[in-house]
Amino acid sequence: MVVSYRNQRQEPEVDLLKRKILEYGKVLPDNILKVDSFLNHQVDIGLLTEMGKEFAKLFAGCRITKVLTIEASGIILGGLAAQAIGVPMLFAKKSQTKNLSKGVYSAKVMSYTHGKVYDIFVSKEYLTPEDEVLIIDDFLANGEALRGLISLVEQAGAKLVGCGIAIEKGFQGGGDMMRMQGIKVESLAIIDRMSPDGLVFRS
Amino acid sequence: MVVSYRNQRQEPEVDLLKRKILEYGKVLPDNILKVDSFLNHQVDIGLLTEMGKEFAKLFAGCRITKVLTIEASGIILGGLAAQAIGVPMLFAKKSQTKNLSKGVYSAKVMSYTHGKVYDIFVSKEYLTPEDEVLIIDDFLANGEALRGLISLVEQAGAKLVGCGIAIEKGFQGGGDMMRMQGIKVESLAIIDRMSPDGLVFRS
Repeated sequence: MVVSYRNQRQEPEVDLLKRKILEYGKVLPDNILKVDSFLNHQVDIGLLTEMGKEFAKLFAGCRITKVLTIEASGIILGGLAAQAIGVPMLFAKKSQTKNLSKGVYSAKVMSYTHGKVYDIFVSKEYLTPEDEVLIIDDFLANGEALRGLISLVEQAGAKLVGCGIAIEKGFQGGGDMMRMQGIKVESLAIIDRMSPDGLVFRS
Repeated sequence: MVVSYRNQRQEPEVDLLKRKILEYGKVLPDNILKVDSFLNHQVDIGLLTEMGKEFAKLFAGCRITKVLTIEASGIILGGLAAQAIGVPMLFAKKSQTKNLSKGVYSAKVMSYTHGKVYDIFVSKEYLTPEDEVLIIDDFLANGEALRGLISLVEQAGAKLVGCGIAIEKGFQGGGDMMRMQGIKVESLAIIDRMSPDGLVFRS
């Protein structure tokens, strides 16, 4: 992969992730970045532990009572961020059935990758108006999944602290739209251009 | 919940989990133990970090190159065991489609809870004959999921080191059957009897 590596930031965790993407990521058709050798199938736990600590630093000034993420591939990064921050982690479940219990908050999420809509939900017991929530996910593209998670936080009357993302596909615009809405979105690697010939990080 | 608490072992992590089960677990019909306040929906990361360390101790004499688990609820415990051991974690994915790629090892697993059969699979790239694999999961009942994971290890020609489980439903027999087959199965809490009135741990 021929790449332009234009990261100006000095955080070592960020550099670790970007280097890993450059070394092991594969750009497939339809803007898919395959990182299943270290992020969402096989997982480099040492790397993700450092990324969890980086989220703790990026949101160090904020009161956080809970990390919220979504199954399946958000769970390990969300868990390691929760470990670094010292709070519980809650993961939203996905369902294609319509038989959701009354005891849940739910939202509909369109998956462009899989071409279908699914429900995500959390038990009302575990998300309350007292919670101050950091949302963590592995990918941010158009922002569909993130908007679903934010909706769960809002339904619960909880406070949204912000969103921490491993890899943001900046060229799909979801992250910047949320920033314009005043949501604090911190992504460890933002990709502004991507093709099978290489990728360019936002500096 | 009225309980008999007959644990004779002294490991503090084991005690932590058992106390948590006694305090927050709920026994539902059909032998379901609801532990979604700390294990498989909301997750007590401090507790699971200690449980991960306990698995590292229980398999301390063994060479391990990889932790294998299964989505979704095995991911965080598997990841924290991998963190304590210092190896990567690989999680098997579930699918109900028949369109599995040729690049995967797959196995069929019967879910008694959901009354259906699904495929689990891992990419051949990430499980090889050089691997020595510790399997981690949150629950062991009849052993269906575990047998599926063991089949993936065997298909890859990798070595099975053993299985580490959070909660084993001893009365369903899956764990003891595997032990009789010579597989090292270490469960942090084995429940021998369970009803809405309480539960009894194996001592």
